[in-house]
Amino acid sequence: MLALPPSLTDLTAALGRLPGLGPRSAERLALYLAQAPMESVRHLAHLMTECRSKVTACRPCGALTESQPCAICRDPTRDPSLLCVVERPVDILSLEKAGSYNGKYHVLGGKLSPLDGIEPEDLRIAELKSQVEQESVREIILALGTDVESEATGNYLSHHLRRPGLRITRLAYGLPAGTGLEYADEITLSRALEGRRDLD
Amino acid sequence: MLALPPSLTDLTAALGRLPGLGPRSAERLALYLAQAPMESVRHLAHLMTECRSKVTACRPCGALTESQPCAICRDPTRDPSLLCVVERPVDILSLEKAGSYNGKYHVLGGKLSPLDGIEPEDLRIAELKSQVEQESVREIILALGTDVESEATGNYLSHHLRRPGLRITRLAYGLPAGTGLEYADEITLSRALEGRRDLD
Repeated sequence: MLALPPSLTDLTAALGRLPGLGPRSAERLALYLAQAPMESVRHLAHLMTECRSKVTACRPCGALTESQPCAICRDPTRDPSLLCVVERPVDILSLEKAGSYNGKYHVLGGKLSPLDGIEPEDLRIAELKSQVEQESVREIILALGTDVESEATGNYLSHHLRRPGLRITRLAYGLPAGTGLEYADEITLSRALEGRRDLD
Repeated sequence: MLALPPSLTDLTAALGRLPGLGPRSAERLALYLAQAPMESVRHLAHLMTECRSKVTACRPCGALTESQPCAICRDPTRDPSLLCVVERPVDILSLEKAGSYNGKYHVLGGKLSPLDGIEPEDLRIAELKSQVEQESVREIILALGTDVESEATGNYLSHHLRRPGLRITRLAYGLPAGTGLEYADEITLSRALEGRRDLD
């Protein structure tokens, strides 16, 4: 059985540790990179380290940015009275792609998960409180996931942030767009029923 | 709509040009790398450029290697009278994983494709001829793909390499392992019928 050149084996192993790359994709990528033009491999390596060193978390909101504060925090056309709380920086991207939100964001940096040792003080909850106070927020929209830990995180936040004049909401649960009932699981269907709306 | 930090956009674009990475995987990888420990990103970038600069094509056979000639060419336990011709270096890996071949290899570096401007002189055919002469090869096994270009390449090679005392074979066509007839297309089935074997 052929032993691949050691540097190729090392690269395959390192690529295989990246999220979403299985052993076969990692191997294919490594073989591609070993034969790609030297200049393009150097360029990719440079982009990776440059991106990692330039991109930081926005101090007020936690989004990924190259400047402090980030473009959304600086944007005067964004409604500062709406604050959308998400778990990870990438969630901001998903919401911005949807294109129907014009408030500000706050990144928690995870969700409560006592079994994994993630307690409230490991999340950006103190920063959230100060953002809520400084920006005269009227509504906090919890845009968290729908698993148990995310729901627990939402309940914790709602309990600790609640005060008169501040509305706390969460995203609607229900059927995703573009599918039939046969693809929805029982919990989604129960929630869709529970959250049913009157037709105008 | 949020503009991602420029270095993140650049990295996403560069990753998206790699084989097998769609726009969403590229974005997820870029976001991961932007937040991964600096040390591990530097390490990955280093492995990439190191692999690219260390790995070259073996001069006799064309396999990927860090030393000249490659481990298989140097291996005295390999049967030098058997020569397996493949299109790409990665094909050697597939055959070695199968583990039932103990001869040597030759990488063509592609297949004939006049429409794409790939003519015989673009492939490592001269090197193949000299490998055949120097190593006193008794059998050439064409382990090429089963598409039209690969078959044309096989015919071309068989025509130009044929000489007395040299056997030229190709891999068997037929049903792949572990599936039923219902998954085989018509051409595969016709070939499987055509190549049927007597039961002992």
